Amino acid sequence: MAILVVGSVAFDSIQTPHGAVDHCLGGAATHFSLAASYFTDVRVIGVVGEDFTPEHEAVMTRRGVDTQGIEHAPGLSFHWTGSYAGKLEEATTLGTDLNVFATFEPKIPAAYKESEYLFLANIDPVLQGRVRAQMPNVRMVCGDTMNYWIGDHLENLKKVLKELDVLLINDGEVRMLSGEQNLTRGAEKVLAMGPKTLVVKHGEYGATAFFSSRSFPDDAGGGEDAGKTYRPFRAPALPLAEVVDPTGAGDSFAGGFYGYLASQSKLTPAVFRTAMFYGGVMGSFAVERFGTERLQNVSQEEIAERFKLFVEISHLDAAGA
Amino acid sequence: MAILVVGSVAFDSIQTPHGAVDHCLGGAATHFSLAASYFTDVRVIGVVGEDFTPEHEAVMTRRGVDTQGIEHAPGLSFHWTGSYAGKLEEATTLGTDLNVFATFEPKIPAAYKESEYLFLANIDPVLQGRVRAQMPNVRMVCGDTMNYWIGDHLENLKKVLKELDVLLINDGEVRMLSGEQNLTRGAEKVLAMGPKTLVVKHGEYGATAFFSSRSFPDDAGGGEDAGKTYRPFRAPALPLAEVVDPTGAGDSFAGGFYGYLASQSKLTPAVFRTAMFYGGVMGSFAVERFGTERLQNVSQEEIAERFKLFVEISHLDAAGA
Repeated sequence: MAILVVGSVAFDSIQTPHGAVDHCLGGAATHFSLAASYFTDVRVIGVVGEDFTPEHEAVMTRRGVDTQGIEHAPGLSFHWTGSYAGKLEEATTLGTDLNVFATFEPKIPAAYKESEYLFLANIDPVLQGRVRAQMPNVRMVCGDTMNYWIGDHLENLKKVLKELDVLLINDGEVRMLSGEQNLTRGAEKVLAMGPKTLVVKHGEYGATAFFSSRSFPDDAGGGEDAGKTYRPFRAPALPLAEVVDPTGAGDSFAGGFYGYLASQSKLTPAVFRTAMFYGGVMGSFAVERFGTERLQNVSQEEIAERFKLFVEISHLDAAGA
Repeated sequence: MAILVVGSVAFDSIQTPHGAVDHCLGGAATHFSLAASYFTDVRVIGVVGEDFTPEHEAVMTRRGVDTQGIEHAPGLSFHWTGSYAGKLEEATTLGTDLNVFATFEPKIPAAYKESEYLFLANIDPVLQGRVRAQMPNVRMVCGDTMNYWIGDHLENLKKVLKELDVLLINDGEVRMLSGEQNLTRGAEKVLAMGPKTLVVKHGEYGATAFFSSRSFPDDAGGGEDAGKTYRPFRAPALPLAEVVDPTGAGDSFAGGFYGYLASQSKLTPAVFRTAMFYGGVMGSFAVERFGTERLQNVSQEEIAERFKLFVEISHLDAAGA
C-alpha cells in the first residue's frame, strides 16, 4: 500500500574523511522515499526552489516515486552544509539555509488523499500535525523529529506524538524527550506520551523497538490479550569497514522499515521485526556513497542478499555456519 | 573442561545513582569466576591481603570455584573506589590502592597445570605472558586488557596478543589499540596483531565478534577451507530499566562467554555465537545488584530463561511472537 511522506527535499554540502560533495541531492523525504521505493509506492510532499531541476526530480521518478506533491517555489531550495569527523557519529552543522523551506506549507494533492501509510519526516511539528489532520483515514502514522523541536517546540511536538503509531528517533532524542538517562526507562516515558511503538536508532549499533500493549491492534482478535506486553526487539547494524557518508542513514532506515511495513497486509510482531531488519539493510546501503547515490541503484537481489547477511550476523542458527 | 583464570581479587567501593557500597567483594577474576562457574570448573590465581576473610573466600567456593591459587599476603587487598553517573557508561575512578597487588607474582599450583582453558584477566601484560608461558598445553587462551596497558605498556601487550585465541575488549580499547576510529577497520588491525578472534564489548548495545581465518582450527578438517573467512557476529544486550551497578559487567560477560566455550567439546562458529549470547546473559545478571551479589545466586533455570529472552529480542522467528 502507498506511503505518503512529508519532509525536506534539499541540497547537502557534505565533508567526510572520504571526501566532499557540494549541493548533492538530499533531504529526509528524499532519502526516505528512495529507500521505501524498493518496497512500495511512495508519494512525496515537499517544497523546492528554482535550483531543483528536472534531472533532480528524475532521481525520484526513476524509482517510481510520485513527485506531484513537490511544490516548486521561487528562490532556492533548502541547503544544509555539514561535516563529519572521527567516529562519524554526529555531523557538525556548518550552515542551514532554509530558503523556500522557511515558508513551507504542505498541500496534499487530491490523488494522495487515500494513501494508507503516512510518514511525517523531521519538520516543524505544527506542519506534521496539519498533514496528519488532513489524512483522517490513514491506516498508520510514523514520525521522526529532532533535538531542535524537542527543545524549543515541545508542546507542539507532544500533540503530534499522540497521533503516532510509531515514533522513530535516536538515543539522544529519547534521553532529551524523556529526561531519562536510562534508555529503557526513557522509552517507557516516551511511549506514555502517545506513540504506540518507539523505534530507537543506535547508529552503528543497530536499533531497538520498544512496544506498548497498543502496538499491534491487528492482533487483538488474533489471540493476543488486550493488555499483552511485548518484549523489546533489537536489530543489528552491519559492521562496515567504510562509511563514506552517514547523511540520511536514519531516513534510509526509516524508508526500509516503513516501506516493508506498508508492503505487508498485517501488522504483526513478526512483520515488525522483519521491518526493523530491512531498515538496517537500507541504512547500510545509504552510507556506502555520498548523498543518495547508492540508494538510486540497489537491486532487489542486493537487498535480499544483504537481508540474509543481517540474519547471518545476528542469529544463532544462521545458515552456512 | 576447567578454566584457569588469573586476575584481580579485590574490594570495591562504588557509588551509583542507586546507592553506594563500601569494600564489597570485586575484582575481574572474582566476577569472571562466579559467572563462569555456572558452566564449568573454574580455578583462580590471584593475591589478597589480610582483609580477605574466609567468608569472602566462601563466596567463591560455594560456587565450586577452586581458590587454592589465591595467595594470602601480608597487608591489604587491592581496593578500587569509583563512581558512576548519568548513562552509567564509564566509571570515574576515585582511587586505586594496589596494596598486595603491587607486587603480585602469579604462581600456578601443580593441580592447576592441566587446565585446558586459560583466561588472562586485565593485569600487567608481563604477568599475563608469564602465566601463559607456564601453561604450554592449554587448549585455548582468552585475554582482556585496558587503556592503561595499551597506552603505557604496548610492547609488552603486543607479545601477549600473539598468544591469544580470543581478545575481549571494548570499543574504546579497539580504537586506542588500532588507532582507527572505524570499529571494523580497527578490528582488522587488532586481529593482525595476533588474536585469532576479537570480541568487542559495546556495553548496553551488546557485543560483536570479529573472526579471522584462524578462528576455528577445529573446523579445518570439518569441511572449512583453510583460508575461509567468517562474517562478524553481533549479540545483543538486554535493555534494562534498572542498572544498579555496572561494575564487573564486562568480566561477567567474559565469564559467561568463556565458561560456555569451555563446556563444549568443539569450537565451532555456532558454539561461539551461543557463547556470545551467554556472555550477554551473565552480564545482564551482574548489573542487577551491587558487586557480585547477583552472580552468587543465579539458578540454572534463570540462566536458561534469560538465554531464551535474548533469543526472543534478537531473532526474527522468535517463539511466542
